[in-house]
Amino acid sequence: MLATCVRMWSFPRTSTPAMTTKVTLPDSGGMLKIRRVAIDTYHENVAFLHRNCALYRAEGFQALSKVEIQANNNRINAVLNIVDDDNIVSPDELGLAEQAFDQLGMEEGHLVQIAHTSPPRSMEAVRRKINGERLTLNDFRNITRDITDNRYSKVEMAAFLASSMQSGIDREEIMSLTRAMTETGEQLHWDEPLVADKHCIGGIPGNRTTMLVVPIAAAHGLLIPKTSSRAITSPAGTADTMSVLARVDLTPEEMHTVVDRTRACLVWGGNARLAPADDILISVERPLGIDSEGQMIASILSKKLAAGSTHLLLDIPVGPTAKVRHMNQALSLRKLFEFVGDRLGIHLEVVISDGSQPIGRGIGPALEARDVMQVLHNDPDAPDDLRQKALYLAGRVLEFDPDVRGGQGFHLARDILESGRALKKMQDIIKAQGPATPIAPTAPLNIDITAPEDGYITAINNYQIGRIARLAGAPMDLNAGVDLYVKLGDKISQGEPLYRIQAEFPADFAFARDLAERDNGFRIGAQPAASRSYLEI
Amino acid sequence: MLATCVRMWSFPRTSTPAMTTKVTLPDSGGMLKIRRVAIDTYHENVAFLHRNCALYRAEGFQALSKVEIQANNNRINAVLNIVDDDNIVSPDELGLAEQAFDQLGMEEGHLVQIAHTSPPRSMEAVRRKINGERLTLNDFRNITRDITDNRYSKVEMAAFLASSMQSGIDREEIMSLTRAMTETGEQLHWDEPLVADKHCIGGIPGNRTTMLVVPIAAAHGLLIPKTSSRAITSPAGTADTMSVLARVDLTPEEMHTVVDRTRACLVWGGNARLAPADDILISVERPLGIDSEGQMIASILSKKLAAGSTHLLLDIPVGPTAKVRHMNQALSLRKLFEFVGDRLGIHLEVVISDGSQPIGRGIGPALEARDVMQVLHNDPDAPDDLRQKALYLAGRVLEFDPDVRGGQGFHLARDILESGRALKKMQDIIKAQGPATPIAPTAPLNIDITAPEDGYITAINNYQIGRIARLAGAPMDLNAGVDLYVKLGDKISQGEPLYRIQAEFPADFAFARDLAERDNGFRIGAQPAASRSYLEI
Repeated sequence: MLATCVRMWSFPRTSTPAMTTKVTLPDSGGMLKIRRVAIDTYHENVAFLHRNCALYRAEGFQALSKVEIQANNNRINAVLNIVDDDNIVSPDELGLAEQAFDQLGMEEGHLVQIAHTSPPRSMEAVRRKINGERLTLNDFRNITRDITDNRYSKVEMAAFLASSMQSGIDREEIMSLTRAMTETGEQLHWDEPLVADKHCIGGIPGNRTTMLVVPIAAAHGLLIPKTSSRAITSPAGTADTMSVLARVDLTPEEMHTVVDRTRACLVWGGNARLAPADDILISVERPLGIDSEGQMIASILSKKLAAGSTHLLLDIPVGPTAKVRHMNQALSLRKLFEFVGDRLGIHLEVVISDGSQPIGRGIGPALEARDVMQVLHNDPDAPDDLRQKALYLAGRVLEFDPDVRGGQGFHLARDILESGRALKKMQDIIKAQGPATPIAPTAPLNIDITAPEDGYITAINNYQIGRIARLAGAPMDLNAGVDLYVKLGDKISQGEPLYRIQAEFPADFAFARDLAERDNGFRIGAQPAASRSYLEI
Repeated sequence: MLATCVRMWSFPRTSTPAMTTKVTLPDSGGMLKIRRVAIDTYHENVAFLHRNCALYRAEGFQALSKVEIQANNNRINAVLNIVDDDNIVSPDELGLAEQAFDQLGMEEGHLVQIAHTSPPRSMEAVRRKINGERLTLNDFRNITRDITDNRYSKVEMAAFLASSMQSGIDREEIMSLTRAMTETGEQLHWDEPLVADKHCIGGIPGNRTTMLVVPIAAAHGLLIPKTSSRAITSPAGTADTMSVLARVDLTPEEMHTVVDRTRACLVWGGNARLAPADDILISVERPLGIDSEGQMIASILSKKLAAGSTHLLLDIPVGPTAKVRHMNQALSLRKLFEFVGDRLGIHLEVVISDGSQPIGRGIGPALEARDVMQVLHNDPDAPDDLRQKALYLAGRVLEFDPDVRGGQGFHLARDILESGRALKKMQDIIKAQGPATPIAPTAPLNIDITAPEDGYITAINNYQIGRIARLAGAPMDLNAGVDLYVKLGDKISQGEPLYRIQAEFPADFAFARDLAERDNGFRIGAQPAASRSYLEI
């Protein structure tokens, strides 16, 4: 019966002759009104189409497929999500998440066309990388340019990252990637033969040496225009801590004015658009939890090259809860940094330091700013470990100056600090950048976390202390954080305080306190642990 | 001035003694009301948090970070998106995209807790793969299980895919991946020693041989319970075409009933939940545009193993616009299929066929169903290429029967077809599955695309013809598609029709016609092209 029905369809060999008129797409079918969808998709362009949109059916668009959106002469690529709710987009609209909307730069209601699009052209290089080929500088240039222009979806970035991790990328390629990332954004130029810089690979709470090294080096006369990041996963970055004292979100022009006046600055690098491909890749790399030496090196050095640095001192802390946990890792990382730095023409020196515990006492922007200012004021209460480490690093930076005799940097740095010239320089920098909006002198909520037993402090977990400080509200609430009373090797009795938690808001306070009471991050033993004498500092 | 202010903060060594009461998290701070957000994120769990949500600030959640959502004893993982619009979620709510909402299985307004979560545990194996290690069967089992449970984000899946492509995965690993994917879903059992199956790797429009092979094989007495997919990127899958004639969305129980009655079925495999990890991975693999033999083999064979097949005939079409473009590729693919098939205990034979043009005349569900029924009816107008290819493949399947002498399958298949037993078997299958809802006998809109010059057809672009049929509305509109008048080698005069486009809706019709008029997919030359005699069929 059914089969008979099927047979009735005639085979249309003899049919009407073809129309040959050129057809243009009907406006109603081909155009959609754009609408902003207030979802922050970070650096991925996302578009939203209603399931009942005629175009969705006609074009066979799939969820997650890539589309090109065109209006006048603007074109962007976006990943498509399918929506079943007219309140988000209606069937004649195309929703654009915040990033995509901003990048297209049109008013809501503007008519746009959408079409299927292929992956960005540089994905062809990513496919070659996946197949085990070595990529050239040009390949990396095309990839990082497409990433910067938001042409890559997160999924495409993940494929690139996975293919260029540890075993997949050699040191020549790391160099090419570094150079390509440098070229994705702006570059600062200082017109001097020696532009000093200092960087720590991170992971050690309270390690705010930069805010001491910069004024010391500048007081000596070195040019040291320092751009820093805000904290991403830590309780405070240098930019957060400096923001307690001064404005840090300077434009590149303002930054130049400050540096002209003081030979230094301590600003947030975000406005300078240095190596933006790096920031985008990091946003995908971090959730993957994949550590890659190659990506780390390219990330750090591309920012430094873009910032115009010629001489860089790099601090790699090693310790059981640091980013680098073993000496051999630190040494292999140092070799890679040296190789890439040498090839890209930046004078680079690496210091391997003790990363077994936080540096200084305060953890969180205001507490760390207090530590820094205590050191600059030569306050006898200033944390000595912060002071010593900063002097060591500042000394090494001073030795970039050809007129400073090798080995004399430390003493020179100490003279600059003790004479008050470093403090004076810091005050000049603060004045030139513009003072910060004053904050309350202390946080309203605080609690001391005490030792559960007698003994010596044998271990401090950097990661756990950092997490407690973050839960307490750092870096967003400047006064929030952790203030340490004891350090490795100190003797302590049961009930004596290990550290204080400070917070602005009750919910944050409860979260941080709860975490500290579950695991306070300190280990207490009968004997002090052996010292780690193989480290430089 | 500012520096002085900083100095005023006292160093709190002598402070109030610590509180020791255990703190529980306040309900207001720790719980959020869930709300369904009608966005289809396919197999990725996505959650939406308002930027002003207290938890967002306190926990330092990042856009794209992974969170664990907990309510009673249900826990799911999701990727976080940040929202700035109270109409999507308000600050005391947690939005869940459709998949995540369904997986959590709670009413709207239910209170949930969210917490940071680590990547799924099997990401540790993905990291090892990225570092160049070989993975074990257990590694692949953990990965595919986590993927099936929606614990992987798209980004994590992309990292896995990129790390296990071509150069990254050896044939032993392909075998382990195949076995692991098989185990992620249900498995069908038929309790017979010979369960026949037939599969084509795809890419050739109109290639509907399965609907002929199955009734011929079943009429001979073989057990051939066929599960097929719907079209994903093609104008019709076997399930779409069969749905013109019969119900195809059978439950596994209904499928067993049909097979008990007729020794065969032609159903959509989606209800049987065969190797679901495969479907999820494909959704990420396709937008990446990365072809991987390993993934293709694991994808096809895991579905067959899960479907309980013991004997599989595999069709690999080769041609300039087919999935496999060169003979050496087809041969290497055949070796890999044979290796994995043998190791996993499925009797597998590979046929390399001519993929240089579409098979049959109709492209689109109803047009292909018409071709199939013409062949079954021994209609003299039936497309001969479809008939010949189906008989060849059916003959090879019949030779799985130990009682069929090698080389006799083709003649046996032809006898079964010509005697009308294949048609009778198809009618029995249609009756057992339940007839389809009747559709209109033809599409309301159609146009013939004509030859722009005299000559011979020297090439037909499978991809372009498939795309035109899709734009016309196939497979969603069953009557939509392309109906070919001429094939390779045919002589044609200017103005004679090459094919007809059929559509249901004016917008689709205009899209398809416009594309065909820009590039009709046919090449016309002065001489017929040489035949490709190295192919089996």
